[in-house]
Amino acid sequence: MPNEVRRTKMRRAMEAQNLDALILRLPENVLLLSGHWPMIGVVFLLFPREGKATLIFPECYRQEVLANYEDCDPVSYLLGGANHPPMFSAVGKLLRERVQASWKRIGYEGNFETAAPSWNAGEAIIPAADSIALYKEVFAGTELVDATELILSERIRKTPYEIERMKIASEISCFGMAAFEELVKVGISGVELAAIVEKTIMIEGTGYRDAFRVRAFAQVSTGDAETHVSHRPNIVSTKRPMADGDFAVLELGVVADGYWADRTRVRIAGTARDEQVRIYETVRKAQEAATSAIKPGVRAKDVDAAARNVIEAAGYGPDFPHITGHGLGFGYHEPGPILGPHSEDVLEEGMLTSVEPGIYTAKFGGVRIEDDVAVTSSGSLVLGPYRKVCN
Amino acid sequence: MPNEVRRTKMRRAMEAQNLDALILRLPENVLLLSGHWPMIGVVFLLFPREGKATLIFPECYRQEVLANYEDCDPVSYLLGGANHPPMFSAVGKLLRERVQASWKRIGYEGNFETAAPSWNAGEAIIPAADSIALYKEVFAGTELVDATELILSERIRKTPYEIERMKIASEISCFGMAAFEELVKVGISGVELAAIVEKTIMIEGTGYRDAFRVRAFAQVSTGDAETHVSHRPNIVSTKRPMADGDFAVLELGVVADGYWADRTRVRIAGTARDEQVRIYETVRKAQEAATSAIKPGVRAKDVDAAARNVIEAAGYGPDFPHITGHGLGFGYHEPGPILGPHSEDVLEEGMLTSVEPGIYTAKFGGVRIEDDVAVTSSGSLVLGPYRKVCN
Repeated sequence: MPNEVRRTKMRRAMEAQNLDALILRLPENVLLLSGHWPMIGVVFLLFPREGKATLIFPECYRQEVLANYEDCDPVSYLLGGANHPPMFSAVGKLLRERVQASWKRIGYEGNFETAAPSWNAGEAIIPAADSIALYKEVFAGTELVDATELILSERIRKTPYEIERMKIASEISCFGMAAFEELVKVGISGVELAAIVEKTIMIEGTGYRDAFRVRAFAQVSTGDAETHVSHRPNIVSTKRPMADGDFAVLELGVVADGYWADRTRVRIAGTARDEQVRIYETVRKAQEAATSAIKPGVRAKDVDAAARNVIEAAGYGPDFPHITGHGLGFGYHEPGPILGPHSEDVLEEGMLTSVEPGIYTAKFGGVRIEDDVAVTSSGSLVLGPYRKVCN
Repeated sequence: MPNEVRRTKMRRAMEAQNLDALILRLPENVLLLSGHWPMIGVVFLLFPREGKATLIFPECYRQEVLANYEDCDPVSYLLGGANHPPMFSAVGKLLRERVQASWKRIGYEGNFETAAPSWNAGEAIIPAADSIALYKEVFAGTELVDATELILSERIRKTPYEIERMKIASEISCFGMAAFEELVKVGISGVELAAIVEKTIMIEGTGYRDAFRVRAFAQVSTGDAETHVSHRPNIVSTKRPMADGDFAVLELGVVADGYWADRTRVRIAGTARDEQVRIYETVRKAQEAATSAIKPGVRAKDVDAAARNVIEAAGYGPDFPHITGHGLGFGYHEPGPILGPHSEDVLEEGMLTSVEPGIYTAKFGGVRIEDDVAVTSSGSLVLGPYRKVCN
């Protein structure tokens, strides 16, 4: 039971909110409390405050469930055959058999507006009206409570086991960053770079430290015009061939068995212009200043300021339009902590944040450097350290 | 306005249900009625029955919106900067300014339990409690109606323009199937095959017939044990090296600018066993029988029977445990039509379905062949035809 501490903490939080059980369907939350990362979103976890949890899964996934579930009773239903009953009636039956007469309040995932994909990233499966109707029917007589805030506020502080799993994802991201470093040259396009980085991560990452399901999402912008706006929430890699003196910015999400990494690296094709080296070095120093500022008890806004001050001192303040970092781990992005000038967050041991300052100019292009940094008992730990050199 | 017929049809359907407007957020539905496929899920479309629609998008996506929006007023808000207001307050303000006093009933996406990813497949963004609260506030005094069924029932019949866009995705999938054909050999693994197929599609598909955003999701099972269960909803590619006489089954989802293809092809490494050729040829004939049975007015269960009869006649009936096909196009899978023995669906012009019978045996492995087939005015059209040969 490598992550028993997670379940103990969650049960304590449920007690404080008088919740008798949680009913979970989003893959990231099933993973959180059962250790099993669903193949697609048709796995349910009934997690009571007292007694053992029940993991309800399609029989065809028995092998994957048995490989990694923890501390719950796995029960299966039949899904996907030409003659199988509808999913909700099968799942409803299994849930009804497990409802305790004494339960008064059940928490559900009512307000996840952002969700990590299951293993099947081509299709998100989410709790909507049908799920809510099922919960209302199965838990008739109890109060259904939106537990989104509870779940997210517990998730913000990772357990040592979870940090270790997220470290695997970050280490795997290094395979992609190494391929990127080698490949950037005059003539190659952003689409080619992104496609090869993803391929490399899938091939070299699968099996690394027993990682079973690995996938990458890479976006590469190149040249002054594209990298100038490469701070946008997500960008489109193009077929434009790189020219001499172009920056390439690799924005990289990696998932390994449900745990996420979020990295960025930058390389120059051919000969760097002097100003580009100055921009790159300023971002590198800002990123290191923010990383060094991370420890328990520090205000998140002060970590942001550590990066921002370096960039402002170098005269690039207006060219750093975004926050310095965001939480992540059970998804590509998580709502906390936020390393930004208006953040009220205070760092605590177990928090995991991206650290990703950037400078984006019209004349010389844009640079961002991003690592995932865990708050330790006394300071910070960069997950999967990787060198920062632009040429 | 290449897809004006879609909006005319939707307005007629809204009239029948007395809906004054739709408020849409899922990327697939914004695409349906505006022509714009969102980068991430922070675009909203207010689509009134009378008058012009409003597309509310983050300013940083102006370029992508202007490239492909149709027949709506694009208005932007600021997102993602360190000093920008929260998304919902910005979007709420823009919506409130556009609400008509005469509106009585507004439809929203209340019950999409399955959603296609936006361009950023690493993160699904979905309408949950916060969106509903925004809608209730903005549309106070009107009745909020779950329009999921309405939207899905309109989506099931594609317009000629939409079929043409889905054809581009299917044609792009052929780049991946060609790479797969060439690569399958003794020693290569499912992970390698999947990764290279995805890479090939991203590189060769981007720019093909002006496709701008292209991504593939490939799963490859190899050998008797893996391919025996390769009919599972989705499978995990492994590092197992292919042995002589192994089947490799490529399950492939492709998205091109929001329109989807779903294909499957099978190859043998080295020397085929006689029984494998017999299985493959039976599946090929079953798939062609089902495809030939498709035309307007035919019952979906009869198309299923056309494939099932071929497989049963060859003695493999129990080895074909799933349905023959499902709808798709605005997602990897759509709820209709269903080509299965219990389906009540009747085919109509404009429907798009996968045709994917299979035979899965423990001793000789599994085979499935899958194409996407549109119902035309007089028969059927295979989108992006590609040869079916296993060795």
